[in-house]
Amino acid sequence: MPAKGVLVAVTADVVIAGGGVIGTAIGWRAAAAGLDVVLADPARGDGASLVAAGMLAPVSEALFGEGALLRVNLLALDRFPSFAAELERVTGHRVGLRREGTLAVAYDAGDYAALMRLTAFRRSAGLDAEELDSRACRKLESFLTPDVHGGVLFPGDWSVDNRRYAAALREAAAAAGVRVVPDRVTAVLTADGAGADSPDGAGDRVRGVALASGGEIGSARVVVAAGSWSGAVDGLPAALRSAVRPVKGQLLRLRHPDGMPPVLTHTIRATVRGADVYLVPRADGEVIVGATQEERGPDLTVTAGATHDLLHDAMSVLPVTSELILAETCAGLRPGTPDNGPIVGEVGPGGLLLATGHYRNGILMSAATADAAVACLTGRAPAPEWEPFGPGRFLAGEGAR
Amino acid sequence: MPAKGVLVAVTADVVIAGGGVIGTAIGWRAAAAGLDVVLADPARGDGASLVAAGMLAPVSEALFGEGALLRVNLLALDRFPSFAAELERVTGHRVGLRREGTLAVAYDAGDYAALMRLTAFRRSAGLDAEELDSRACRKLESFLTPDVHGGVLFPGDWSVDNRRYAAALREAAAAAGVRVVPDRVTAVLTADGAGADSPDGAGDRVRGVALASGGEIGSARVVVAAGSWSGAVDGLPAALRSAVRPVKGQLLRLRHPDGMPPVLTHTIRATVRGADVYLVPRADGEVIVGATQEERGPDLTVTAGATHDLLHDAMSVLPVTSELILAETCAGLRPGTPDNGPIVGEVGPGGLLLATGHYRNGILMSAATADAAVACLTGRAPAPEWEPFGPGRFLAGEGAR
Repeated sequence: MPAKGVLVAVTADVVIAGGGVIGTAIGWRAAAAGLDVVLADPARGDGASLVAAGMLAPVSEALFGEGALLRVNLLALDRFPSFAAELERVTGHRVGLRREGTLAVAYDAGDYAALMRLTAFRRSAGLDAEELDSRACRKLESFLTPDVHGGVLFPGDWSVDNRRYAAALREAAAAAGVRVVPDRVTAVLTADGAGADSPDGAGDRVRGVALASGGEIGSARVVVAAGSWSGAVDGLPAALRSAVRPVKGQLLRLRHPDGMPPVLTHTIRATVRGADVYLVPRADGEVIVGATQEERGPDLTVTAGATHDLLHDAMSVLPVTSELILAETCAGLRPGTPDNGPIVGEVGPGGLLLATGHYRNGILMSAATADAAVACLTGRAPAPEWEPFGPGRFLAGEGAR
Repeated sequence: MPAKGVLVAVTADVVIAGGGVIGTAIGWRAAAAGLDVVLADPARGDGASLVAAGMLAPVSEALFGEGALLRVNLLALDRFPSFAAELERVTGHRVGLRREGTLAVAYDAGDYAALMRLTAFRRSAGLDAEELDSRACRKLESFLTPDVHGGVLFPGDWSVDNRRYAAALREAAAAAGVRVVPDRVTAVLTADGAGADSPDGAGDRVRGVALASGGEIGSARVVVAAGSWSGAVDGLPAALRSAVRPVKGQLLRLRHPDGMPPVLTHTIRATVRGADVYLVPRADGEVIVGATQEERGPDLTVTAGATHDLLHDAMSVLPVTSELILAETCAGLRPGTPDNGPIVGEVGPGGLLLATGHYRNGILMSAATADAAVACLTGRAPAPEWEPFGPGRFLAGEGAR
């Protein structure tokens, strides 16, 4: 029963807290699976997914010691094209999936040595990589500077237009019957009112969520997919709330002036004297340049220094960048976790599901995360690749599953 | 008589074509002198004066061979404070006049040698200039890099907050009774309908202006103060239309993050390995960084290369710039002329006055230009410093006065 004086405005099978690409993808698939879904977000489409380059790049992102993350990212990439195709079919909109591949380039000999070490590791994991000398790099991308030392083509790393993709997801979710409540979820509510962070919360069940406006939504199942803000939701186990932190990323959106032919075909990932920069071309003539990684809490300011460094590094490898129009500078917050992996899975109290902490791979993992979440919501097991990424790894005997 | 089917919506003593700081300053002073003024501009306050740093810097801008321009700029600077004080008194708003002076700094020995040559020239013209070594520069501005080779303080070069100034001018003009027609003047009309560019136009008199909407404003006097767009006004002598060209300038508006104390007190004009950059501090925590000078016609795009170069040069002399917020990137068009001087004065047909071509000094010259224009409009002679800058210098016997 709701407390006296509190309005229960809506009830649903599932409430999803967070309307970014993760929450919206889950909402769409859950509604398509026959569930009655309410999605709560005060600023839909205004999160990290708008400030993203849309790289689908498990191979060129794979780092030493992150084998489990690589496997779930490869699962996510494998799932992405059919998911995107269904999204395009349902909405009639293109989402800008590009499969030309990613060209990693090294500016100097030190950058090249580092790239070769990573490439050996990636190959040992069975990933496809083609080494290219400077001339071969320029054969693929003629505007690259001749100063580039060399590169590696990763044909399996793609990209998607993140803004088109996010907009199509919202449209598909609405068409599937997902209702949107433009409000912030402040707490997950449990049947006994104690909240999931109480010592005996694990034996309890959720009964809905509280909203910033003072209202409530009644629901036996709640998905917390609030990205960087997941830690602000009351009623989650304390160890999970502190496991998700915002990692600031600044990026630039460039455009070709009228009449200039496209300067890029592949995604370029460059290392310029140890600094990483990427350039992602879009079919509509946009080129995204990103991104910084800054531990500055919830700060969303665009700084002179970050803009300078991104432009400098991009112009170092692709001098023609200077001729492009600087259409937008922006900053977003990615939900980082202590081990760089996402948090996807159920946690006590009963009916509570987490789908957050996707860090730099929210767009890439959105389709596979929706599959995993809908599996949990419908009583099936998620794919085994998700097993290492349950919430339990951050709980020390606090009632984890 | 107006032609059949054409609406004469308004009549006035004077029509001013162009609502930037020049046109608005003239409008305000003309109305204060008792004239009935209509100001026509389709996008008031959206011109070059918004994309400006507001430097009032005749001394640090003075170049070899521009003695007459220096003299009119010094007249303009002398007039500015009392004009601004009256504007503040009339409107009750501060316009942000700063008199701390301008510190010119040279990054390397070559930059310093060039600065010393210019300083000798400026001193020979009687201008005040104080040479400073690197340490003395940093005593004035502690955030300057120790790598600065040396500098010169020009105490007579000030700045004003161009946006506050433009807004106050608009308010003062409205309060003085200036009526605004939000439309573009396409042509100056003459009594015989031939226009001022006809061979016998000089003997004719203006009867008003034609507007882009198709309407007309009836008026015996017309002031063309349309900045970069002055050449688009039909009915001006062809040689004058082609004398004014747009010179693109890109600049950046930076802001201090919350809690950071001001990083600058003086305007800084730096030469960094031959490239010029300036940084102008505002009382409200803004720092303007500018500006490029590009011959690209009416192009108003912000480019990646210009943004990079401005940030790079600013950070070279003032490294803390990297910590500032990049609040805005913008591009404007300054009205350039073949000799870099303004065009202020009467030209045939009778009743036609030009006040345009102020290039980089529109804000600085606005007060003195208003004086000169109102003198012409009320039958008095402008100050003698204006004599070299009449329209006649661009007319080869085409009916100039």
